[in-house]
Amino acid sequence: MAKWVYGFEASHAEGRADMRALLGGKGANLAEMSNLGLPVPPGFTITTEVCTWFYRNAQSYPQDLKPAIEAAVAHLGDLTNARFGNPERPLLVSVRSGARASMPGMMDTVLNLGLNDETVRGLAAQTGDERFALDAYRRFIQMYSSVVLEIDHPRLEHILEAEKDRKGVEFDTELDAEDWKRIIARFKGEIQTLLGRPFPQDVQDQLWGAIGAVFGSWSGARAKTYRRLHDIPEDWGTAVNVQAMVFGNRGNSSCTGVAFTRDPSTGERTLYGEFLINAQGEDVVAGIRTPQSLTRRAREALGSQRPSMEEAMPRAFAELSNIAGLLEKHYRDMQDMEFTVQEGRLYMLQTRTGKRTTRAALRIATEMSGEGVISRDEALLRIDAGSLDQMLHPMLDPDAPRELIASGLAASPGSASGEVVFSANEAERAAANDRAVILVRLETSPEDIHGMHAAKGILTVRGGMTSHAAVVARGMGRPCVTGAGSIKIDAARGVMSAGGVTVARGEVITIDGAEGRVYRGKVPTIHPEMTQEFALLMSWADARRRLKVRANADTPFDCETAKRFGAEGVGLCRTEHMFFEAGRVTAVREMILADDLEGRQAALAKLLPMQRTDFAAIFRIMEDRPVTIRLLDPPLHEFIPHTDEEIAAVARSSGADPQKLRARALALAEANPMLGHRGCRLGITYPEIYEMQALAIFEAAIAAQKETGKAPPLEIMIPLVGFRSELDFLAQRIAEVAKRVERAHGMRPHYLIGTMIELPRAALRAEELAKTAEFFSFGTNDLTQTTLGVSRDDAGSFLGEYIAQGLIGRDPFVSIDVEGVGEMVRIATERGRHGRPGIKLGICGEHGGDPDSIGFCHDTGLDYVSCSPFRVPVARLAAAQAAIAGSNASLAD
Amino acid sequence: MAKWVYGFEASHAEGRADMRALLGGKGANLAEMSNLGLPVPPGFTITTEVCTWFYRNAQSYPQDLKPAIEAAVAHLGDLTNARFGNPERPLLVSVRSGARASMPGMMDTVLNLGLNDETVRGLAAQTGDERFALDAYRRFIQMYSSVVLEIDHPRLEHILEAEKDRKGVEFDTELDAEDWKRIIARFKGEIQTLLGRPFPQDVQDQLWGAIGAVFGSWSGARAKTYRRLHDIPEDWGTAVNVQAMVFGNRGNSSCTGVAFTRDPSTGERTLYGEFLINAQGEDVVAGIRTPQSLTRRAREALGSQRPSMEEAMPRAFAELSNIAGLLEKHYRDMQDMEFTVQEGRLYMLQTRTGKRTTRAALRIATEMSGEGVISRDEALLRIDAGSLDQMLHPMLDPDAPRELIASGLAASPGSASGEVVFSANEAERAAANDRAVILVRLETSPEDIHGMHAAKGILTVRGGMTSHAAVVARGMGRPCVTGAGSIKIDAARGVMSAGGVTVARGEVITIDGAEGRVYRGKVPTIHPEMTQEFALLMSWADARRRLKVRANADTPFDCETAKRFGAEGVGLCRTEHMFFEAGRVTAVREMILADDLEGRQAALAKLLPMQRTDFAAIFRIMEDRPVTIRLLDPPLHEFIPHTDEEIAAVARSSGADPQKLRARALALAEANPMLGHRGCRLGITYPEIYEMQALAIFEAAIAAQKETGKAPPLEIMIPLVGFRSELDFLAQRIAEVAKRVERAHGMRPHYLIGTMIELPRAALRAEELAKTAEFFSFGTNDLTQTTLGVSRDDAGSFLGEYIAQGLIGRDPFVSIDVEGVGEMVRIATERGRHGRPGIKLGICGEHGGDPDSIGFCHDTGLDYVSCSPFRVPVARLAAAQAAIAGSNASLAD
Repeated sequence: MAKWVYGFEASHAEGRADMRALLGGKGANLAEMSNLGLPVPPGFTITTEVCTWFYRNAQSYPQDLKPAIEAAVAHLGDLTNARFGNPERPLLVSVRSGARASMPGMMDTVLNLGLNDETVRGLAAQTGDERFALDAYRRFIQMYSSVVLEIDHPRLEHILEAEKDRKGVEFDTELDAEDWKRIIARFKGEIQTLLGRPFPQDVQDQLWGAIGAVFGSWSGARAKTYRRLHDIPEDWGTAVNVQAMVFGNRGNSSCTGVAFTRDPSTGERTLYGEFLINAQGEDVVAGIRTPQSLTRRAREALGSQRPSMEEAMPRAFAELSNIAGLLEKHYRDMQDMEFTVQEGRLYMLQTRTGKRTTRAALRIATEMSGEGVISRDEALLRIDAGSLDQMLHPMLDPDAPRELIASGLAASPGSASGEVVFSANEAERAAANDRAVILVRLETSPEDIHGMHAAKGILTVRGGMTSHAAVVARGMGRPCVTGAGSIKIDAARGVMSAGGVTVARGEVITIDGAEGRVYRGKVPTIHPEMTQEFALLMSWADARRRLKVRANADTPFDCETAKRFGAEGVGLCRTEHMFFEAGRVTAVREMILADDLEGRQAALAKLLPMQRTDFAAIFRIMEDRPVTIRLLDPPLHEFIPHTDEEIAAVARSSGADPQKLRARALALAEANPMLGHRGCRLGITYPEIYEMQALAIFEAAIAAQKETGKAPPLEIMIPLVGFRSELDFLAQRIAEVAKRVERAHGMRPHYLIGTMIELPRAALRAEELAKTAEFFSFGTNDLTQTTLGVSRDDAGSFLGEYIAQGLIGRDPFVSIDVEGVGEMVRIATERGRHGRPGIKLGICGEHGGDPDSIGFCHDTGLDYVSCSPFRVPVARLAAAQAAIAGSNASLAD
Repeated sequence: MAKWVYGFEASHAEGRADMRALLGGKGANLAEMSNLGLPVPPGFTITTEVCTWFYRNAQSYPQDLKPAIEAAVAHLGDLTNARFGNPERPLLVSVRSGARASMPGMMDTVLNLGLNDETVRGLAAQTGDERFALDAYRRFIQMYSSVVLEIDHPRLEHILEAEKDRKGVEFDTELDAEDWKRIIARFKGEIQTLLGRPFPQDVQDQLWGAIGAVFGSWSGARAKTYRRLHDIPEDWGTAVNVQAMVFGNRGNSSCTGVAFTRDPSTGERTLYGEFLINAQGEDVVAGIRTPQSLTRRAREALGSQRPSMEEAMPRAFAELSNIAGLLEKHYRDMQDMEFTVQEGRLYMLQTRTGKRTTRAALRIATEMSGEGVISRDEALLRIDAGSLDQMLHPMLDPDAPRELIASGLAASPGSASGEVVFSANEAERAAANDRAVILVRLETSPEDIHGMHAAKGILTVRGGMTSHAAVVARGMGRPCVTGAGSIKIDAARGVMSAGGVTVARGEVITIDGAEGRVYRGKVPTIHPEMTQEFALLMSWADARRRLKVRANADTPFDCETAKRFGAEGVGLCRTEHMFFEAGRVTAVREMILADDLEGRQAALAKLLPMQRTDFAAIFRIMEDRPVTIRLLDPPLHEFIPHTDEEIAAVARSSGADPQKLRARALALAEANPMLGHRGCRLGITYPEIYEMQALAIFEAAIAAQKETGKAPPLEIMIPLVGFRSELDFLAQRIAEVAKRVERAHGMRPHYLIGTMIELPRAALRAEELAKTAEFFSFGTNDLTQTTLGVSRDDAGSFLGEYIAQGLIGRDPFVSIDVEGVGEMVRIATERGRHGRPGIKLGICGEHGGDPDSIGFCHDTGLDYVSCSPFRVPVARLAAAQAAIAGSNASLAD
């Protein structure tokens, strides 16, 4: 026969901490604390298997559950010298849900269950405090009505408010026993009216009602959605915890509170928390009274006069402090505990691993490792790699007031304030005058790059997490909010409006790129310093990881940033980004619009020295680190001039007829530019473009070699290859350029030739491609677009709905779609290695900075990941975590 | 030691017909004819291995080649009682190339080699005909100069013309021996001037020069490109045939000619061909004299007075006739032969399998099978499946004069003449008045469909083989030429111009969709009838094939056509095409532009009865054949209204504000519509659309079932699925509609649910998808776009260049890319069958009508192909051929 109920009592419990699956997190920890001999009010846990049974059997219970619960309740009575429903010595209990993982939407606590019109009198007699007993009863009615009977909270709250108004008082505490009696009577009347039946007086009905409500909440809409999104199986189920009540509101020797074993903000090793004298749990939440500090030191730091627990209840505090140390040691992590002191006696109601800021997490992990509590591997696993971003960017002062006017996507972390400008040129002018600006655009294009550089932050009305604005901003480390759709820009009038507020050009706003928020005015920011714990943990990560970490860096500035954050090379240098600097874009347009070879060559001749200078600077900075240069992969439509002004500029520069240029620009427009005439296709139809680039690269490399005596480790990468014949065609032409350079300079350029894998065909034909390619770099942005058939520019109209409906878990442009795109990567890896054992494999899509995707790259056996310079620390840590997870998994085998 | 040279002589040859690889086609057949005892002038073949050796050894020859050739030449002298270079009895030879497969760009024939200033006198003496000898010499000089010495043909031709002018004559035949002497002297002078050395007098130099020219032509640009495109390995090489000369220009008892064993136009079993009395081969080509018929019957049919060979040379004719029968029987196929009669004696110079029209091919194959010469399988393999198109469409009368004004792509076969119109509405009005029109557009869109229906043919300036115009025209069976880029349309003036000609609205043009040509005026067409041989062969094909053949048919009209051509079901019924009929598109636009559920439902309510009627008609026509209906897969950009007029129509119909509609249309515009909000994505964001369609389908099916007593075999197909969750979400909603219909009508709709496989992710996840999907249909158009990352609308700017450069073989939108897209199909097939054994698998992309792709589908084990109605016979035959090839291959294993 199954065991459905697990009891816990002083120094003895039937469960253990490692029985989370059966008892839920809360139940398992209550059992564990009991076993440790800690003062836990006795109780029992109804297992998650009952929940599973309940749903498999048309929401009914196993036959033998009822006797088991009756026995457990009776035993609880024995332990507490009380009886459930007994008018003289009533047993009161709390009922709480507790799943394996905490989950929003689950039923909350019901306290004081077991009170009715009779037992409330017993409680009054027993405690000698009628007001206390009636207060407990009305609290129970309110909670139970809301949580179990599903009566809207305001229905009863309204009665309470009316009574206070009638009496002319402000606080609940000003109501006396008679008031509560009247209120309880009105509560019961209202419930009768609403439900057509009275509030349950039978304590068994109360208990079963609460148990049913917990199980019922498991299949609530919010919980279901959450599980779908987090891949939590339906059959995990939730447990129910029933526990004897203790009261923190039995006078000034009672209290209730929350404590952390270390400071969750800073990580400092000190007991940290708050408590309220003479209060029950929900009073803290209600915020009517301000909680007090636990320690004297914390009170003094706050400058508060109200005594700390250390001062007010030194004995209970000492015990709590002692228990905190014991629990942290036992669980080997910082704990977040709930406790109650009833008439001087401490009870532990919950313990769990505490949430913390990234800064605190770093300090706690490294210090605990230093204390010998956890290993370095464990310390590394304790940090959420994605959260490291917080350490690298300014963030809003959490205590500063603010006026939210719009929300969008958290496209690039960090916060910034500045005057609103609506164009890149404005931004540049303002920045030249040392004015801080936020560039606000409908969306950005490569022509805005100088303005994005000049701005402190970028805000766009359209676009997703991988829109142009988002990608470029992340690369630059600029805070950015995209897709703030509620904002209307009236550029003509020079104003934007959102949330009923109009902001004119020059007025200040603040954006929070980590949260995707837009605030009016200046909200103060704080700069998290790069702590020594951060540096220490990074050094541990570097020692542990197998994956190399490179950066996607297009400019010398990017390269400097990348090096500072520990990048071991450049995994993607996009040459087209160089083409948008001042003065260059016209030459590029000239090249693209030329309708013959000579026209293109004239334009290319202008670009050659610029490219050579760019590359030389990059090689100088990166020294002996490898640099992967991708040859031109123009999103053609971004380069084609649209305005008359742009066309006139090209006409002036090339001497061509503007009318003809306009016609050519129109002819170049594409139905699906993503799948159009770009990448190596342009290199094949106009080989002179790549030849110019190869020449610039080789000459820059030779110049660097002459300076330093060492040849820069150069990797030339061909984009958008689908056929080996494409790669061969271009590789041969590049080899010919290399020979020409050797003849001219007497030095042979050293380089590897490789290809992006960003088309499904390339992945499938990887074995063939590897016969020419010396390295592959997975361009998972485009590979996601083609494998899923989803344009990232257009995905906004449905991907959000997909995530909301639970059809997919995460945005596949943020975290790699392991089953689809990942399968492509696996296929290409296997086939590529077959074609060329030892071929160098890396990833350079946006996924290169996403911890889950980095884990995938490690598991798949890639050699490196490449990401935005600002994500490099994230990648270093994630790579180490993947290595640890990998060796743990193989140990477990 | 390798054998480099293979001799052939009367009744004895060292080679055989099956030695094509070594001796080339020509050499092998010359050997075979010799072995058969036929009168072949003796000669020898230098093997293809010499060619391979030549290229592997820096264009040099094996040491032992020279003695072998010297011996072979000496033996040839013995056989012909002559000596190479001997002034009295000179041996003259022809030198010709001969590869394994015939190939353009290879060196042509050199005749009369062995003549020089001395031997020409010997030939004169020997034949007693100085003029003949001199004529032979000057012909040799001309041919050799052009082919071996690479002197431009006009350089010498010019001298010849000048001499004729000087003498005031028109024909070569009017020149006498003295004239030829002068001309030969001037030829030699010109050659000396151009090359700085004299015309070679040494006959060995002449021979080695010609051999070198043959081998050299193997690596000429044209031949190389051809081989790359046809996957012919470089190391096949070419052979060289050296053969003793015979002369058809030795007087009226000599002649030269070409004969076919059956009529290559009609397939009739009769000796067919032409000959010229007293002529050498190139005189026929030169076209100065009109050749005469071989048989008396043919002469009479032409009404010619000039005697046939049968009449003029009865003995030689009888012998030829006899040999023709023998060769056809021997080779078991219709032969194309070259012969020469020298002074009454017949010589066979070549035999090979003859080219023929499709009509002839059908008749020859079925008759030869009837005669017991070949099996039915062989008969089926003899027909080029792709060529069957010719049988189903009118074609230009090959003899009619014509004025070509433009060329484009052969987008849809058949020919048509009609007045030029520039809009769909004009086309419809004209057709209503029984006027034949050709619709000329820059490109077409779904809004032009009514005009395309009304027109006799379609001509577009832009677009490729799978552009909208091409796909729709093929589906309708309308002739179509696309991408005729040289045409300029000036719609305002109502004219088009091309090739220096201006054609006004209402003037007549003719298009040939099988050749991609545009002619001015009306060119008469002929209608090939569906012969009885066609029907017979089709019945054999049906008995032999394993693949089922369905049609892509969107309308009742399409379904009728499909049935007539033997389709076994509808493999793809595109519901969006129904939406473009008059009056409907506005309702569709209303639906798409609605910004809330009610707006969409109002529009859907208008569409429901229309869709129901459509489906009911289709079910009635298709009877018990399966019909696969694809739910809406709107290329959103095609449905969004652009013009003010279109927006106004939607506004009137829906009562919405035009201003708001315009804004919404703008908001719906996508960067890459191909990868945008389409297919099931629209079905998921707006489930009511698919629900309406499912309802229309089920109600129509139930109506059909009530009429006929049988439920139509219904297959509902979800487009653009990438995730199983998409399919599950929609399948469940459709199932709910089915339940509602069952409750309302008391009958349960029977249907299969399936999905398109058109995204790489779907192919990779096929095992999962198959757990829900009961069938897959490979949408290889879109699968090609996503796997290759190529937009078919934009591919024109580079795919042509790829094919020209030999980077890819065929347009992947025409014939499936077996290595890439095909690999996707193989993966999905294997995984899909794993997920659901016995899952039904088909293809419904344009590839379903391409013979090579059909072969691939057979080999991959698909269950059916679906193609345009007019391609159904092609598919039936190609499927049979694939089955035969498959069983032959397995026999060979």
